[in-house]
Amino acid sequence: MITFKIKEPDKGIEQALCDKIENLAKPKGSLGRLESLALQIGLIQQTLNPVLSHPINVIYAADHGIADEGVSKSPKEVTRQVIYNFLNGGSGVCFLARQHGFEIKIVDGGVDYDFPEIPRLISRKVRKGTRNYLHEAAMTTEEVDLAICYGADIVTDCYNEGCNVISFGEMGIGNTATSSMWMTCLTGIPLERCVGAGSGLDAAGVRHKYEVLKAALDNYSGDGSALDVLRYFGGIEMVMAVGGMLRAAELGMVILVDGFIMTNCVLMASRLYPAMLPYCVFGHCGDESGHKLVLDYLGAEPLLHLGLRLGEGSGSVCAYPIVDSAVRMINEMHTFAQAAVTKYI
Amino acid sequence: MITFKIKEPDKGIEQALCDKIENLAKPKGSLGRLESLALQIGLIQQTLNPVLSHPINVIYAADHGIADEGVSKSPKEVTRQVIYNFLNGGSGVCFLARQHGFEIKIVDGGVDYDFPEIPRLISRKVRKGTRNYLHEAAMTTEEVDLAICYGADIVTDCYNEGCNVISFGEMGIGNTATSSMWMTCLTGIPLERCVGAGSGLDAAGVRHKYEVLKAALDNYSGDGSALDVLRYFGGIEMVMAVGGMLRAAELGMVILVDGFIMTNCVLMASRLYPAMLPYCVFGHCGDESGHKLVLDYLGAEPLLHLGLRLGEGSGSVCAYPIVDSAVRMINEMHTFAQAAVTKYI
Repeated sequence: MITFKIKEPDKGIEQALCDKIENLAKPKGSLGRLESLALQIGLIQQTLNPVLSHPINVIYAADHGIADEGVSKSPKEVTRQVIYNFLNGGSGVCFLARQHGFEIKIVDGGVDYDFPEIPRLISRKVRKGTRNYLHEAAMTTEEVDLAICYGADIVTDCYNEGCNVISFGEMGIGNTATSSMWMTCLTGIPLERCVGAGSGLDAAGVRHKYEVLKAALDNYSGDGSALDVLRYFGGIEMVMAVGGMLRAAELGMVILVDGFIMTNCVLMASRLYPAMLPYCVFGHCGDESGHKLVLDYLGAEPLLHLGLRLGEGSGSVCAYPIVDSAVRMINEMHTFAQAAVTKYI
Repeated sequence: MITFKIKEPDKGIEQALCDKIENLAKPKGSLGRLESLALQIGLIQQTLNPVLSHPINVIYAADHGIADEGVSKSPKEVTRQVIYNFLNGGSGVCFLARQHGFEIKIVDGGVDYDFPEIPRLISRKVRKGTRNYLHEAAMTTEEVDLAICYGADIVTDCYNEGCNVISFGEMGIGNTATSSMWMTCLTGIPLERCVGAGSGLDAAGVRHKYEVLKAALDNYSGDGSALDVLRYFGGIEMVMAVGGMLRAAELGMVILVDGFIMTNCVLMASRLYPAMLPYCVFGHCGDESGHKLVLDYLGAEPLLHLGLRLGEGSGSVCAYPIVDSAVRMINEMHTFAQAAVTKYI
């Protein structure tokens, strides 16, 4: 696997950022989470005057062999159908992206379908879907390396286009199942607590999903290292997101984290490179069982709790205006001295 | 007091709204709170294609006689200082308003200061601050009637300017104390649980605030009716907000509710006219002790939990993009049929 040079943001500027925030004309701490966000973004950008530019939502898409076991409410064909809906601007994340000025990049990393050439669909097909990890490893080492590179290179393109704040989304029927495997293997939280309804399974469906995944876990005989878990369970779009997140941290970009699947990609990425974590802003805690558990495990405080469970980057793009608010706060609010307000804090 | 003609939104359109939301190409319920918000706004506007137009944040400002008892961390002069900061665009809510396209209207309802004539400051002075309710009624019946009218008329002006979504904010040193009095009297929740740190009291300060308010409550000998509580404890800006909210509901506008003080104004307004409640979208649950309790009492589900406690409408304006997202969802997302996505729900 390619290596990444990731450094935690230098804390040398932290006191100056705190002083600036404390001198804004308001009761101390009264802008709550906006204040801690402004501090985080100032640290990432190493400036007292942070700027957010050219936000992009990258959607990695791929299929999962495990979907053949009926672990999702949705049939596999939905992956490609929803990609067409992205391209037509009709999906959930599309209206949010238009609202908040995000460009969307859609990457076919491994959809089990032969798309014709489509201008706005970025083709980086590693394989037409992963193998079924109930029976065998989902990916080979070579496929992992390729997916990490592809995922990272897309982010370099974004950076070169002027993007310094990037959201990661996904589309892939079966990927909450794969996320649950990553989560249980990396955190030690029992599988049962990591498995949820995905796109809408009923109780019997969740039970079936759990049983399939339990069997897959029992069959797994790897070394349990992060890289081996990533390879054995896949999926391609998640591996790409790990590569993308690591490149984004390497380039000092703000990483907006979406829902259950992308949070597990942060879990994986931060296990490989712990220094990537301070670059992450967690957008949303959704309804998928296990999402709150993995957020807590990471010590993450998501901005929104709106019961979303759509993926695609919907939770992270929906949270973007709050990040923007934090940046505006530190740049635009007047200080006590400017405002001639008695400093009563 | 003037009367208001407020009707709950007609539920005749509810099924059609639910059907429209259910046919959007996404797993059923996967846009969570955006879906319930879209339903609420469709009901308020009685349409399947709601529109938000010309959002305005009205800030009512006034002083409180009770501030003389040291119930706030901030001296009274801060009320007028912050008004100048509003006018100069430097306060907390100003950058949020610019971000989300809100006009701000600042209304001097009873600041204890003689402002010169200032073009953007709307002068509707009822009285230079309320009386100190530790010793006597804060307001007279005539002053209440005037404040309700003034507060309502500002909203009529907004409506006539094309506004159909309105946020209410406040500025008035001492108004968390007054809010606690309204809350305990109207809900029966013990005063101790209704009193908090306001703009930043320490534990001893909160204790002193509680003791002053407990003495005021013991001295109160009124009939405990909503109108009597409103009159006896004031304050002018809160009474104006009650009038404003009632007029907004009468005109079928979406009411964005800010923090602890404005939530208590909803409590009061809905006690007078229960039919106003379905017009309210609760923006934020902040850190002020008691805020979550009064939200729960009202059955309200706030959109944000960001630890804000600034007032001014900051919590409601900050939440606006989520309301906008809900409206965009119902208008812009493609249906299963349009998107040619298998309806897998």
